[in-house]
Amino acid sequence: MAFIADELAKKQRAISVAEFFEKNKHMLGFDSPTRALFTCVKEAVDNSLDACEEAELLPEISVTIEKGEDDHFFITVLDNGPGISKEQVGPVFGKLLYGSRFHSIRQSRGQQGIGVSACVLYAQLSTGLPAEIITKVGETMPAYSCKVRIDTQKNEPQISDEKLFHWEQSSGTQIKLCVNGRYVREKKQSIFEYLKETSIVNPHARITLREPGGITTIFERVTTRMPRKTQEIKPHPHGIEIGQLMKMLSSTDSKKVLSFLVNEFSRVGYTTAKDVCSRAGLKGEEDPKKLSYDVTKKLYEALKDTKVSVPPAECLSPISETLLRRSLKNEFDTEFIAVSTREPEVYGGHPFLVEAAIAYLKSAEEPVIMRFANKVPLLYQQGGCVITKAIESIDWRRYGLEQRGGKGLPNAPVAFLVHVASTNVPFTSETKEAIAEIPEIEDEIKSALRDCARKLQSHMKKKEKYKKQKEKERIIREILPLMAERCASFLGKPPIDLEPVIARIMDAVTIESEVNYSEVCNVRLIVKNYTSRAKSFTLYATVPKEAKLISSKPGCTMDENALVFKIPRIKSNGLFEILYSLSGIEKGDYDEPELYFEGIDEVYGAEPWVMV
Amino acid sequence: MAFIADELAKKQRAISVAEFFEKNKHMLGFDSPTRALFTCVKEAVDNSLDACEEAELLPEISVTIEKGEDDHFFITVLDNGPGISKEQVGPVFGKLLYGSRFHSIRQSRGQQGIGVSACVLYAQLSTGLPAEIITKVGETMPAYSCKVRIDTQKNEPQISDEKLFHWEQSSGTQIKLCVNGRYVREKKQSIFEYLKETSIVNPHARITLREPGGITTIFERVTTRMPRKTQEIKPHPHGIEIGQLMKMLSSTDSKKVLSFLVNEFSRVGYTTAKDVCSRAGLKGEEDPKKLSYDVTKKLYEALKDTKVSVPPAECLSPISETLLRRSLKNEFDTEFIAVSTREPEVYGGHPFLVEAAIAYLKSAEEPVIMRFANKVPLLYQQGGCVITKAIESIDWRRYGLEQRGGKGLPNAPVAFLVHVASTNVPFTSETKEAIAEIPEIEDEIKSALRDCARKLQSHMKKKEKYKKQKEKERIIREILPLMAERCASFLGKPPIDLEPVIARIMDAVTIESEVNYSEVCNVRLIVKNYTSRAKSFTLYATVPKEAKLISSKPGCTMDENALVFKIPRIKSNGLFEILYSLSGIEKGDYDEPELYFEGIDEVYGAEPWVMV
Repeated sequence: MAFIADELAKKQRAISVAEFFEKNKHMLGFDSPTRALFTCVKEAVDNSLDACEEAELLPEISVTIEKGEDDHFFITVLDNGPGISKEQVGPVFGKLLYGSRFHSIRQSRGQQGIGVSACVLYAQLSTGLPAEIITKVGETMPAYSCKVRIDTQKNEPQISDEKLFHWEQSSGTQIKLCVNGRYVREKKQSIFEYLKETSIVNPHARITLREPGGITTIFERVTTRMPRKTQEIKPHPHGIEIGQLMKMLSSTDSKKVLSFLVNEFSRVGYTTAKDVCSRAGLKGEEDPKKLSYDVTKKLYEALKDTKVSVPPAECLSPISETLLRRSLKNEFDTEFIAVSTREPEVYGGHPFLVEAAIAYLKSAEEPVIMRFANKVPLLYQQGGCVITKAIESIDWRRYGLEQRGGKGLPNAPVAFLVHVASTNVPFTSETKEAIAEIPEIEDEIKSALRDCARKLQSHMKKKEKYKKQKEKERIIREILPLMAERCASFLGKPPIDLEPVIARIMDAVTIESEVNYSEVCNVRLIVKNYTSRAKSFTLYATVPKEAKLISSKPGCTMDENALVFKIPRIKSNGLFEILYSLSGIEKGDYDEPELYFEGIDEVYGAEPWVMV
Repeated sequence: MAFIADELAKKQRAISVAEFFEKNKHMLGFDSPTRALFTCVKEAVDNSLDACEEAELLPEISVTIEKGEDDHFFITVLDNGPGISKEQVGPVFGKLLYGSRFHSIRQSRGQQGIGVSACVLYAQLSTGLPAEIITKVGETMPAYSCKVRIDTQKNEPQISDEKLFHWEQSSGTQIKLCVNGRYVREKKQSIFEYLKETSIVNPHARITLREPGGITTIFERVTTRMPRKTQEIKPHPHGIEIGQLMKMLSSTDSKKVLSFLVNEFSRVGYTTAKDVCSRAGLKGEEDPKKLSYDVTKKLYEALKDTKVSVPPAECLSPISETLLRRSLKNEFDTEFIAVSTREPEVYGGHPFLVEAAIAYLKSAEEPVIMRFANKVPLLYQQGGCVITKAIESIDWRRYGLEQRGGKGLPNAPVAFLVHVASTNVPFTSETKEAIAEIPEIEDEIKSALRDCARKLQSHMKKKEKYKKQKEKERIIREILPLMAERCASFLGKPPIDLEPVIARIMDAVTIESEVNYSEVCNVRLIVKNYTSRAKSFTLYATVPKEAKLISSKPGCTMDENALVFKIPRIKSNGLFEILYSLSGIEKGDYDEPELYFEGIDEVYGAEPWVMV
């Protein structure tokens, strides 16, 4: 007897992952010719940066885009990385879901093993042409070159035209692709913009772009200091799923539950492990491979409930406050920038960290959002990203910005920048342009943004107050002497000393800052006591983490990121000057020190010091 | 000698697609507990609907959600579909990238071979428990049940607890999953909302929902007519990529290029095929497997340049104007709904079709967007969808709606509904909640929306004009008689007949409509001639495609979707009445006929007839 199910069964087939993405190439970022070209450059450059970082080499990356016949474009990306072993060239470029970074818990740009092989797939689909690879693993070795295609039905590489030859580079890799595309320069979502932003947050890289028109742009490195290499870690016990725990239990080499916990998790020492075991009603002596479902569940619950430190910061690499400021200044004419860096947190066992900045712009522009994930600028799919969602769900009116209905983008000239760094950034799709709406990440982004917003609001208030104070002073200093003179002449008496009177009216301590850059950054702070009594207090001036204090007059101490000055008694109408110099930062990185006071009621131009 | 590349090579590994999605479960719609529960129901129900449609069975689907311990929820989805052959149960539920619909060009809900196995993967990950499947392929067969897990490292199913037993159903499939989730009812993005919208656009399905609180809701079927079964077609020659052509050439059974073209493509007959060959400089006798790259390229260019009809409509299944209206009415209190259905188009060789509707709402609400793809409501990732992008990029001010800066959502009480039907909907990710920004699709959506906007604007103008006309009539009919009476009494003359005077002042033909529903839909149109001369003209009244004309007085003819009435001479101040009845539609489907006139200068309450 024939059933419909049997008919249907005949059509059932396994689908190779290459076939899947050949049909769904838009999931990989190939939904339009412009974006396709963009994606190819992005994937290749991200790979080059990852390779150089892994080998601790200062990246030299060259990107060349040439126009061919019809809509064909030739993309060549060359790096000075460690090269790729001959046997690995095939799978690295010609097999989807193949790579070194998927199984390690560590922050890197690539993490899926899809990126660059997807570009090879797209080249083959759109122009029918294979990728051309050249690679060299060391000075003493010849270079190896070949052409790579993907057998999509099997998801396996097809290698041809293999050659060995002499190459002037000491090591590195070059990929050349021919794809159907369109080259756009002006747009926000362009290769140029991507490389510019990439170079700002990777200041140790030199990137050269040769565009189809013949224009060459060098994004020069501004430091030869490599960023700290991120450490590979073990899973963090918080937020892992029970299925993951079961898998770990069944594949561990540890013979006892106690050692399993210590060996396989990050931040779990013997004390914590014992605590976990006792919560789960275990001795710790049990064989991890022989736990029943119920016991495993208890162990899982215990892991969730036990207090464990946040993941080690070494596995994450933030962009840094200074580079966030630089990114914003490079794009906009800013009046003020507020920055906030959060502590590492965990979602689903994966450590992550959020940095945010809000710039108040000088020109009245529409709000702009800049997004980064693991130091890679995200230029597409802004609407589908948790960063956008977080920004739009904050009631900006609370922070003094106009906003219709308390949601959506504020109606103010601001630019937002958010960076999410993680050992596993949860992108919404393989194209890695938008971050998924993970509640933990959304919360952290909002906290960071709110923190920036408070700083911005306090700056705006300070500015307003300072303006009023200045105006008050101007009026008093202009009008009071005139009045005094008239009165004196009217009464036929000599003019009186006005300073004590002015002080009593002004009744304020003020502070002003001047920042100049020569070889180093020189800061001058002027404290004026316009009150009728002598005043002394403590002043905190924040400095960027990257900055190094060279000199200060008077001497000061450090408290977190702030210089602490003990200001001696300034007599009524007196003045006190502070001078200090910083190195390690560039012009524009430090325009206006954030100033805080302690031990006095109010200082115009500074905020009360609150321990955070 | 040891190179860094060799060290790196040791870490390189293939990644199984199940491992990949285990780590990237958010790509499949499991980024929060609420959405995870939603995704499981959605994938199972979509599968059930596809299966019933394929077997041409009226779907009876039951969804049960029960709360377990902790955050555990049990989801059971049962259908009356054709069942699944025993051998297929493993791979269908326990292997990602396995299915029957991926390789066929045809509109269906599932297309990737990922959906339901992804749910099994998530269940296993979040609770450690396997999926429980029961299936029966026919009356005479016993039911088969088993438990399914996925070996993620291999992406292969693991079957256990197999049983054969008697089951009361004649055929069907049931899946039971236990997942970590959160059940929310009120939200827009809820299981309830998804099933409600699904039931509206699938009026032939009966869907029962049992919620954790014990509430049972039956979304009853309103028709027993199955939707037309969509036809499987061959690739359309427009928009395919050269890589695809190369693959087709190498795997064809055809011995000659000419027959290859005719056999392997949709809409290519011998004449077209000969034309393509001659453009490519081919005789048509060549062996498809032996074409050089240059010749293939010429053939590809010729295919692109040859005029070919749009794909056959039979491969696509639109929701229909009536159901679009019903969806909107079910959600909102609407004043007017404008609908537009576009002709099939092609992107990348895939046929697609866009339907759109705009509802003007009675209450002053924020604009709302309803999105559908292949008859499935899309409730998540609105921000990342091309539908949203298209809506936000239209300058709605041109159509009389308020909008800040001519972009973004209009500031008006409107609801948008857009349906994209395709043999391959280009979703941005595996979770199938947002459509990618494919330029061809975006253009079609915009065209459909602009069409609706024009209709809406014309309705608003008509309404405004009609209101003014009514007001004019009221004033004339109130004041003129009073004035005439005064004048007559003042002059001592008898009152004059005012009707000809009123007609001269009004100088208009008006039309009003009344719609009543009893067993059928009864429409009454009243035409009044307020001019000083007799008038005759042609009136067009649009009716829904689904509607059947039962009677009309006077008789009428049909022109596309409009009834055509030849209105005989109506004398000055005369009146003419039209009555017609429609069946096949429900109360609310047809509130206000769109009326058009021809052969007269103006009719208040109708628009000039323009051939589209």
